[in-house]
Amino acid sequence: MRVRLELVFSVVVIFVCFQSLPSAAVSESKVIKLRINGGRLIGQIEKLSEFGRNPQGGIDRVAFSEADISAREYMMTMIRNLGLKVHIDEAGNIMSWKAGSDPKLPPILFGSHIDTVPNGGTYDGALGVLAALECFQTLDEKKIITRHPLENVIFSDEEGGSIGSLAMIGELPPASLETVSQSGKTVRDGIRVLGGNPDAVSAAARRTGEIRAYLELHIEQGGRLDSLGKEIGVVEGIVGIHHWEVRIEGVSNHAGTTPMNVRQDALLAASYLIIAVNRAVTAIPGDQVGTVGKIGAEPGAANVIPGLVVLTLELRDLSEDKIQKLYQEIRKEALSIEQKAGTRIAFNPLEPASHPAPSDPRVRSCIAQAAGDLGHSTIFLPSGAGHDAQNLARIAPMGMIFVPSVKGISHSPKEYSRPEDIERGANVLLQTILRIDEGCLEDKPR
Amino acid sequence: MRVRLELVFSVVVIFVCFQSLPSAAVSESKVIKLRINGGRLIGQIEKLSEFGRNPQGGIDRVAFSEADISAREYMMTMIRNLGLKVHIDEAGNIMSWKAGSDPKLPPILFGSHIDTVPNGGTYDGALGVLAALECFQTLDEKKIITRHPLENVIFSDEEGGSIGSLAMIGELPPASLETVSQSGKTVRDGIRVLGGNPDAVSAAARRTGEIRAYLELHIEQGGRLDSLGKEIGVVEGIVGIHHWEVRIEGVSNHAGTTPMNVRQDALLAASYLIIAVNRAVTAIPGDQVGTVGKIGAEPGAANVIPGLVVLTLELRDLSEDKIQKLYQEIRKEALSIEQKAGTRIAFNPLEPASHPAPSDPRVRSCIAQAAGDLGHSTIFLPSGAGHDAQNLARIAPMGMIFVPSVKGISHSPKEYSRPEDIERGANVLLQTILRIDEGCLEDKPR
Repeated sequence: MRVRLELVFSVVVIFVCFQSLPSAAVSESKVIKLRINGGRLIGQIEKLSEFGRNPQGGIDRVAFSEADISAREYMMTMIRNLGLKVHIDEAGNIMSWKAGSDPKLPPILFGSHIDTVPNGGTYDGALGVLAALECFQTLDEKKIITRHPLENVIFSDEEGGSIGSLAMIGELPPASLETVSQSGKTVRDGIRVLGGNPDAVSAAARRTGEIRAYLELHIEQGGRLDSLGKEIGVVEGIVGIHHWEVRIEGVSNHAGTTPMNVRQDALLAASYLIIAVNRAVTAIPGDQVGTVGKIGAEPGAANVIPGLVVLTLELRDLSEDKIQKLYQEIRKEALSIEQKAGTRIAFNPLEPASHPAPSDPRVRSCIAQAAGDLGHSTIFLPSGAGHDAQNLARIAPMGMIFVPSVKGISHSPKEYSRPEDIERGANVLLQTILRIDEGCLEDKPR
Repeated sequence: MRVRLELVFSVVVIFVCFQSLPSAAVSESKVIKLRINGGRLIGQIEKLSEFGRNPQGGIDRVAFSEADISAREYMMTMIRNLGLKVHIDEAGNIMSWKAGSDPKLPPILFGSHIDTVPNGGTYDGALGVLAALECFQTLDEKKIITRHPLENVIFSDEEGGSIGSLAMIGELPPASLETVSQSGKTVRDGIRVLGGNPDAVSAAARRTGEIRAYLELHIEQGGRLDSLGKEIGVVEGIVGIHHWEVRIEGVSNHAGTTPMNVRQDALLAASYLIIAVNRAVTAIPGDQVGTVGKIGAEPGAANVIPGLVVLTLELRDLSEDKIQKLYQEIRKEALSIEQKAGTRIAFNPLEPASHPAPSDPRVRSCIAQAAGDLGHSTIFLPSGAGHDAQNLARIAPMGMIFVPSVKGISHSPKEYSRPEDIERGANVLLQTILRIDEGCLEDKPR
């Protein structure tokens, strides 16, 4: 039934469009039927994955490395072959552009990144970039010209701290330029090597209103879609990340001569705390997560009671308020652990914590409609990982589309997404671009 | 009342002794009244503590170091000045000797060590050695000749693995000679530097029966005497030490994208285990201790769920059986943690574990009598720390005397024992030697 109703609706829409659109613009019938070429996209992903591939099957393409530089040159050639205008902005982002039919409209921006973590996977970042270019190619083949300009971005150094996207929203801290990246180069030198201009990085900044919407297709990196058997994830937002260094001070003492009842064992207290973090985070419904990922005990000998433990605490959620509530709950538990274990527990907040970046509800709705019309099963979910999109959300309506990561594995040679899921995701991206072009954000009828 | 009865008893004993002892032997009235010179002993401890003293006030006199070598030369001069015969055995132990009146009797051996841990304290080892020599000097001043020969030992490299005492019982593993000690030298080279002969180390071995008894005065290193306000500890034995490397395998994953309910967090499992160790060890009465002193989590990043934790488990008790029961209890808890946290926990026993070394009940009783007669408050307690005495217990009746460590601190510049406690301990050592000489071990009336 649903399909039939939509066909009727489409006919109406086509009729309306023909009345209102310039002749060079999108033909609605074409738009509805438009599909990317899945095989071609998979082929492009495989080709890009040769840049930096290591013997373990992983990808070593950290930002500013030789592999990153070669891959970027390859991408620029590919973009030029698509007939797009391309340039490198001051922050080293590769920007390409296709004019729309209405020169007064701001561009719809979409893309991702192609740098990887050390020994990373094939799909993280690369999918979003290559699917974006596949959309351009599909539109070109069908000679479709959108009303809005379409702009693609390949962000510089995403894995090293979202350098390119921070620059694009004008919020790259000057100190970040002096950070030594995984490549061994400072970010400043790295941007220069990419063809950017680190001394004028502020010129890469775009202002609120200059971009109609920002869209990013990405692998989920988590296992929710895969375990639920869903095809498309509509991202509710990118979670905020707060982290603390926690110092637990007890008294270091001889493991043989110190009776159990007089010990002030910092590692025992740390154990109580780690369990308390788990309990607090799982005690309430929701997608919040809490992690202790790093721990050190001093002096760190088998025959000495630890006198000092330093560990990290990380809390993530879409709600800043929930993060703060969890933190207060954990602090409360820490107070009673201090008493029980004869230790002192100090929480030192680390900066910068990233704040929750909700996606734009209208963009979310456009994505969900596009996926639904394509017949794909969808869920709404938060992104637990950070993305360039969380920065873009500060200056433009932002939306992200997730495709399943098999077993939720990412940042690993085992990272894998199935061809059919990749094709679905790219079609949802294309259809969402076209819907937004057609006024989906304004809730106008097509 | 007790004092008066003892006086009467002493008079009887003196009478008996006069009947049975050769004229050159101990005069009982002298024996009962005999006291070491506390001020002199404290002075000697202070002098020895200058060897290796560092700017933090600690002692850097690790075995085979320049400071160790100089201190040993100083000690040998001191021993010669006391008119004793001295030589260095094949294992580098400094042995000195004073003949008794009965050439058929085996020697009573007593001593300790003068090497320290890095940045160690003033009293650990040094007290036992210098109190032993103070006993010799006291006997010499009063012209007292015991029936048994009296033998003193300054063991080589106690802190590096009880090298000298293991050699003395003929159980130094050949591989130990190749170990690199804290001094940077191998034990083999170190023994040579001390004047020993590592190629003939087995010649240093003594056989069961060759030593009448072994006595060692030592600081407690724990805080039991100090916290209970007791003056003398009669050591029940040196605890056995079993240790394990515990590997906890979970699944390392992204801290942002992995929901709480699918995590297999190795550090969370480790926390449950550390608490289970504490619970098992404290659940039953006794002096047993259990410690997790060392922990590492991999990959060890704030934003990654730990997939692997390796930690140490150490259990100590005077009863081998109790150690095994505790271990089984902990293994049982580990099984349920494996289920709860989705992890695997493997226990890898580390060698060499030291086995419990009970002191000889008759020696213990002689020490307790001596301390009681001197009017000192005593308790019986295990030694949680290892000592050369635990090796000597394999070939001779062994006894140890503890004096309070203020706040239980040792292996630290803050290690401290009060002069009055040191004097008490040395007097108990002296009186115990004399009691054993007089047949205390045979339960003969004096």
